[in-house]
Amino acid sequence: MILGIDPGSQLTGWGLVDHSGNRSVYLASGAFKLGSRRPLPERLLRLSEGLEDLLARYEPRHCAIEQIFTAKNARSALVLGHARGVILCAMARRGVLLHEYAPTQIKQAIVGVGRASKEQVQLMVGALLAHRGALQEDEADALAVALTHAACSGLAARIS
Amino acid sequence: MILGIDPGSQLTGWGLVDHSGNRSVYLASGAFKLGSRRPLPERLLRLSEGLEDLLARYEPRHCAIEQIFTAKNARSALVLGHARGVILCAMARRGVLLHEYAPTQIKQAIVGVGRASKEQVQLMVGALLAHRGALQEDEADALAVALTHAACSGLAARIS
Repeated sequence: MILGIDPGSQLTGWGLVDHSGNRSVYLASGAFKLGSRRPLPERLLRLSEGLEDLLARYEPRHCAIEQIFTAKNARSALVLGHARGVILCAMARRGVLLHEYAPTQIKQAIVGVGRASKEQVQLMVGALLAHRGALQEDEADALAVALTHAACSGLAARIS
Repeated sequence: MILGIDPGSQLTGWGLVDHSGNRSVYLASGAFKLGSRRPLPERLLRLSEGLEDLLARYEPRHCAIEQIFTAKNARSALVLGHARGVILCAMARRGVLLHEYAPTQIKQAIVGVGRASKEQVQLMVGALLAHRGALQEDEADALAVALTHAACSGLAARIS
């Protein structure tokens, strides 16, 4: 089972997929609503507690998350880093293995083109998982990185 | 009791001061050595567990931390944000009140000049707390922000 996370300081998306052989199956997804008006420490605590519940409930072995090289500016990198720090810490606490993928790797894995648009990625996530109904943007992004890890680890297994 | 924190992803300094009236007294200080070679999630977990022990042991009511507006680059802002996120989350979990101070506020409070050097701040911290023996740089920086909160909250109390 692979947990994908799309970190944000106001909304953090998550998605769980099961993967065996060449097939990935949708299990669950959602988003932690951290609130935009609450003080940052409270939002981070909400995120941490939400993750703890999620990890206790599903016990995933792997977590996939987007690798961040740059952000629009240092300020947004700093705030995004806060949420990411809480996520990485929660994974280490439960012994969940972390895998990071660059945005271009995710687009390549999901759409087949490293410069695909966000909309194309979201559309393909729904199609790949045969998911009925709309997925929130953050859920879809979280599922995309989970699917990327499924594809990459499947490929690694076939090579070895 | 005020806990000052100087966050870093390899070394996070901390310092505790007690404050009553106009006087601040040194209680304890140290640094969490998170290691530079370990994976970041492990380092963040070490930081989180170290903070939990510290908060359980001393039960400070207030935590003071440097406010970060900019960093040299987005990359270092992101990594610093990870450590800061874990710290803010640990404080919220224990109900410790967070206070943030800009670097110039800290220099102003400790040395009396907003453009003081790091060395001047460290020298003054030792003098203000009548601390014998050398303080590590990270400890001194953590004590500096704790003392800044002591000075600012003391001032606020005198005004009101």
